[in-house]
Amino acid sequence: MSGNTLGTLFCVTNFGESHGPAIGCVIDGCPPGMELSEADIQQDLDRRRPGTSRHVTQRNEPDAVEILSGVYQGKTTGTPIALLIRNQDQRSKDYGDIAQSFRPGHADYAYWHKYGLRDPRGGGRSSARLTAPTVAAGAVAKKWLAEKYGTAFRACMTQLGELAIPFESWEHVPRNPFFAPVADVQAYEDYMDGLRKSGDSCGARIRVQATGVPVGLGEPLYDKLDADIAYVMMGLNAVKGVEIGAGFASVAQRGTVHGDSLTPQGFASNNAGGVLGGISTGQDIEVQLAIKPTSSIISPRESIDIHGQSTEVITKGRHDPCVGIRAAPIAEALLALVLMDHALRHRAQCGDVRQAVPPIASAREV
Amino acid sequence: MSGNTLGTLFCVTNFGESHGPAIGCVIDGCPPGMELSEADIQQDLDRRRPGTSRHVTQRNEPDAVEILSGVYQGKTTGTPIALLIRNQDQRSKDYGDIAQSFRPGHADYAYWHKYGLRDPRGGGRSSARLTAPTVAAGAVAKKWLAEKYGTAFRACMTQLGELAIPFESWEHVPRNPFFAPVADVQAYEDYMDGLRKSGDSCGARIRVQATGVPVGLGEPLYDKLDADIAYVMMGLNAVKGVEIGAGFASVAQRGTVHGDSLTPQGFASNNAGGVLGGISTGQDIEVQLAIKPTSSIISPRESIDIHGQSTEVITKGRHDPCVGIRAAPIAEALLALVLMDHALRHRAQCGDVRQAVPPIASAREV
Amino acid sequence: MSGNTLGTLFCVTNFGESHGPAIGCVIDGCPPGMELSEADIQQDLDRRRPGTSRHVTQRNEPDAVEILSGVYQGKTTGTPIALLIRNQDQRSKDYGDIAQSFRPGHADYAYWHKYGLRDPRGGGRSSARLTAPTVAAGAVAKKWLAEKYGTAFRACMTQLGELAIPFESWEHVPRNPFFAPVADVQAYEDYMDGLRKSGDSCGARIRVQATGVPVGLGEPLYDKLDADIAYVMMGLNAVKGVEIGAGFASVAQRGTVHGDSLTPQGFASNNAGGVLGGISTGQDIEVQLAIKPTSSIISPRESIDIHGQSTEVITKGRHDPCVGIRAAPIAEALLALVLMDHALRHRAQCGDVRQAVPPIASAREV
Amino acid sequence: MSGNTLGTLFCVTNFGESHGPAIGCVIDGCPPGMELSEADIQQDLDRRRPGTSRHVTQRNEPDAVEILSGVYQGKTTGTPIALLIRNQDQRSKDYGDIAQSFRPGHADYAYWHKYGLRDPRGGGRSSARLTAPTVAAGAVAKKWLAEKYGTAFRACMTQLGELAIPFESWEHVPRNPFFAPVADVQAYEDYMDGLRKSGDSCGARIRVQATGVPVGLGEPLYDKLDADIAYVMMGLNAVKGVEIGAGFASVAQRGTVHGDSLTPQGFASNNAGGVLGGISTGQDIEVQLAIKPTSSIISPRESIDIHGQSTEVITKGRHDPCVGIRAAPIAEALLALVLMDHALRHRAQCGDVRQAVPPIASAREV
Repeated sequence: MSGNTLGTLFCVTNFGESHGPAIGCVIDGCPPGMELSEADIQQDLDRRRPGTSRHVTQRNEPDAVEILSGVYQGKTTGTPIALLIRNQDQRSKDYGDIAQSFRPGHADYAYWHKYGLRDPRGGGRSSARLTAPTVAAGAVAKKWLAEKYGTAFRACMTQLGELAIPFESWEHVPRNPFFAPVADVQAYEDYMDGLRKSGDSCGARIRVQATGVPVGLGEPLYDKLDADIAYVMMGLNAVKGVEIGAGFASVAQRGTVHGDSLTPQGFASNNAGGVLGGISTGQDIEVQLAIKPTSSIISPRESIDIHGQSTEVITKGRHDPCVGIRAAPIAEALLALVLMDHALRHRAQCGDVRQAVPPIASAREV
Repeated sequence: MSGNTLGTLFCVTNFGESHGPAIGCVIDGCPPGMELSEADIQQDLDRRRPGTSRHVTQRNEPDAVEILSGVYQGKTTGTPIALLIRNQDQRSKDYGDIAQSFRPGHADYAYWHKYGLRDPRGGGRSSARLTAPTVAAGAVAKKWLAEKYGTAFRACMTQLGELAIPFESWEHVPRNPFFAPVADVQAYEDYMDGLRKSGDSCGARIRVQATGVPVGLGEPLYDKLDADIAYVMMGLNAVKGVEIGAGFASVAQRGTVHGDSLTPQGFASNNAGGVLGGISTGQDIEVQLAIKPTSSIISPRESIDIHGQSTEVITKGRHDPCVGIRAAPIAEALLALVLMDHALRHRAQCGDVRQAVPPIASAREV
Repeated sequence: MSGNTLGTLFCVTNFGESHGPAIGCVIDGCPPGMELSEADIQQDLDRRRPGTSRHVTQRNEPDAVEILSGVYQGKTTGTPIALLIRNQDQRSKDYGDIAQSFRPGHADYAYWHKYGLRDPRGGGRSSARLTAPTVAAGAVAKKWLAEKYGTAFRACMTQLGELAIPFESWEHVPRNPFFAPVADVQAYEDYMDGLRKSGDSCGARIRVQATGVPVGLGEPLYDKLDADIAYVMMGLNAVKGVEIGAGFASVAQRGTVHGDSLTPQGFASNNAGGVLGGISTGQDIEVQLAIKPTSSIISPRESIDIHGQSTEVITKGRHDPCVGIRAAPIAEALLALVLMDHALRHRAQCGDVRQAVPPIASAREV
Repeated sequence: MSGNTLGTLFCVTNFGESHGPAIGCVIDGCPPGMELSEADIQQDLDRRRPGTSRHVTQRNEPDAVEILSGVYQGKTTGTPIALLIRNQDQRSKDYGDIAQSFRPGHADYAYWHKYGLRDPRGGGRSSARLTAPTVAAGAVAKKWLAEKYGTAFRACMTQLGELAIPFESWEHVPRNPFFAPVADVQAYEDYMDGLRKSGDSCGARIRVQATGVPVGLGEPLYDKLDADIAYVMMGLNAVKGVEIGAGFASVAQRGTVHGDSLTPQGFASNNAGGVLGGISTGQDIEVQLAIKPTSSIISPRESIDIHGQSTEVITKGRHDPCVGIRAAPIAEALLALVLMDHALRHRAQCGDVRQAVPPIASAREV
């Protein structure tokens, strides 16, 4: 299988470039009979959309999705669901200079050497704009998982640059442009304003969670649930690290501490992050991502051109100074796509998901 | 594709249980014409083998590999290479108690609920013993990559429980049982002796590196090189976190710092860890893993039995108090398998690997 | 992988319904750097297009293709090539009656029972209209194979209903609406006119050929070249039989006759049809297809409705009385897609295609 | 996925060479909880085994299968089932001459040019001996399908060389060495005796049938059930043609005749061969295969050596003068593997198989 298809049974094939005529995806393998309309998908696209605050790229894209196939009389038919999003606010002339040199930390260099040519307009295929079709597909997966199992997804920012963000409540997340779980985000507004003035960019840390997860999802020995979660998350633009559950903190834990005790009422803790032996336990899935600072910045950088000669690179155009800000809905979509695919894989081999015995109580917050 | 096959073009299908008659794998897709013998594979199996120091499980397995197919007159023929390792030192009676209850932090619980039954002998399919066939397959990949591109792999331990291990030199790694890059490992010997006495276990942090990596490996949008690295590493038993390059530290870096400058002599740093936009740059690939403490410990733990009733679990039998100790050769093998698969995928679409222009100088140590 | 993607490395994901807003496909894995425009694709679409003679469906579709991605400055970039064809001449009201009953010999019944619902408009997903995206993708494969190896494809009709069509010359094929290799097609015109008057339909036999085929394509043990050819051909709407080379006639041949002698100038015959042991030999690939008569006919048929009650079915609307008439360009496209995929698979494992030693002379006409 | 794995969810990875130490396969994706022992598999292997009559190769192989993994306490665990068959009666010296030249009609030539080297002993990887692991895997699939749906498989010979074999009854099939559905096989005994004396070989035609097939199996647009049947059948050694249902005869049928009428009691005929639109209808699956005459014959043939020089080839050693004789159990296994894989794929997307409404009566004999 070529590299632009995600999933084994719930397959999402992504296409498009940042400044081409359109982007989109084809979802193959969606169960038939589920009600689905553009509105179901648009809501998540709107959460990811650029131009919604001064802290993200000012490119103005409505990201209106059109369902081209796979739905009849408002229901999925089991045939491929093609989703189309027309690009509307390309300004390709901004990228003339970039075509001849490589931005430090950018995919430019790697694409050029891999393919021997590249589409430099807005980063072409390597643009974070291509996460929009992933989000659209994730919305379909979320809907099915919610209706079938009551599974739900949410994500928030836990660190912005050097600033750790405390966890106050999930309810704050949709109320600020940072997806921050805190009531007061003034510090982050100021931080981002300073960053933009200095012509620099910063990283972020994102937490993603799934609740109401069926027990038994994951296909060892290699296609473990956590393996596939790590795969999709590390594949997200700018991600440099992925943790499940206690993550890197588990290195310094003792076995007597790390292993989550089981009680007749459920697990007593969630260091596992919802996965043991590569299979879901019914605990909440807990994932953390490290997102690096954007490479497209206006501060001058030392680099080379396509002929190998020294040059200085300044990236104009419209860019997110922190791509992590819009990462929360994307990370939710990716987690949903993994769970969806594994739910179908599990059903294929083992039939309907077994009920956990005893019922798993809600795990305590990590 | 079901979950026990690793890779898209260089495919490794793994089989076996810890206490079954045999373990092994079938490698499909190996290029023809490469010299290959059991000795080429045995050397890496011996590095992973149990029973080589008092700090690992005392199970005594020679792990002698037999090539069943795919090699004729000492050369690969392009047909599947089946590798067989007979189990020889099973003591299944040690596991009678475990069959009726679930070890906190162990795959027991998840396997039981997924499949409705499980092989409890030595962890069955979930045992780290099943990394042996992966290591065997990795040895084949390493040989081809070394001959074709000069790619080399090495791994070391960078943290043992709470103890950070400084990096002195790669040459120390094969000279101590911890794969530690230091001359003096007395502190780690003492630490492990104390741990065993207390009936507890600990985690570890592992660094894996590939040098001499061709430019251009990786298949965006989803099968990025770093995505597939994260997938195999997170799928390794007990791993809870994966970093590429600067990893989680990149969250607090500014864009002006993180992006590795390019010069006519090569990259000036390696925060990228050898991957940009999901494609190899020719820099060294740098990966870090977080390995959790072993769940099979003799300290009593609160748990439930298969009927959901409270019980206390003590795990007897032979176990690694720190599975991270033997993880270095496994992590090398996994990285080699990913690069091998991507080398073939790249060749399929783009033909022979392009030379980087300008030549990439060795990146500085991270 | 779900069922709407064709190919392992040159992957074509097909979407759309006969009366939905659009049909199309995404090609993933196309080598970069090939010149490609809509015109390269449109010519094959025009050969397959409905409405070009009175012997095919009168639906009027321009089948104009739009390239949405994967091409920059007139060259393929190695990223997915999305192709879109808007449906323009749907007349869905023709299908109201069909939604409640099943046409004998039609996919209606099977779709209904598989998915629990179906899109009845024009056959929905099961319509032969969905071969258009396959033809479009095949045009891309043909272009690459022609430029790389000089491979060429052609197909003709060898039987129409009871009428065997003698082979006179390939040059006649594009000059008549039947893709018949004869100068005078009056008999077939008359036959079809009679058939339409009688409200019936007929089958056809199609021959497909590839010339200039590289030696060594095919991936035994299972993904043999002829296995994959049979797969795509039997998967084409209405096909009930596939032969390679001597086909069913080989049953009555002796080994001394069937095995094609080799001489220093090449093979002396082509009973093999270009494939031995599942691998191409450099001889021409020769395939024959049996196409059944169309199930959508105006003659009344005994059937049942969706409640299992007896009913009589008459199919109105616009249909091909012989779907085999337009099958030639589709069969060419399918053969091209198989060879393209295997060319990339071969290159992955074995590197560039080896030259046959000795050079293979053109095989004699079968 | 590389070419030695069959299936998408019920995956069979085949390994071994005719004269290597062993042959076998790994089955990945078998549902857990099914009783399975070597005896379940051995019975089908014994039906395919060589040396059981004077009309097949005299190589003496017990083909005793060992289950290496995936079964615990007599039940499948859901983990990979590795099956091993040791080769015991190799006589590799018989093949010295063949290594330097190419047999007309044999895979020799294609393997040599594909891989640049080959294992000439007994045909190496291209030997029909490698159908044994396929038969073993098929036995597992048959057992699951029989227990779950009551699906059953049978096959018989319908033509031997020029001799058409009338259908009398399935009960005769196991009682003669030809798998012929007739009571008296003297004519076929005489035919084969004459053929051996003349140093020649012949082809055969095989019919394969599945009964008790669930409705709804098949994954259009490309992975149709009949497409996958054609794929596995054409991939079987020596097969040159595949028909489903009426097959090539459907070319000359009218639509009013070909389309099987539906009645409240079921289908009135079975021209479809059990598949419409690529999806099973619940009718019996009916497949016919054309098998070419064996290329390994003692009659001298004109050929070339590996240097391209003219030579004469005589094949000594032990060979089947008609490989079709042992094809019946192999064809059954292949059909079972396809249905098994599609049963799991259907369950993944659509849940448990729906009951046909109305119940499908047994289709009449074709």
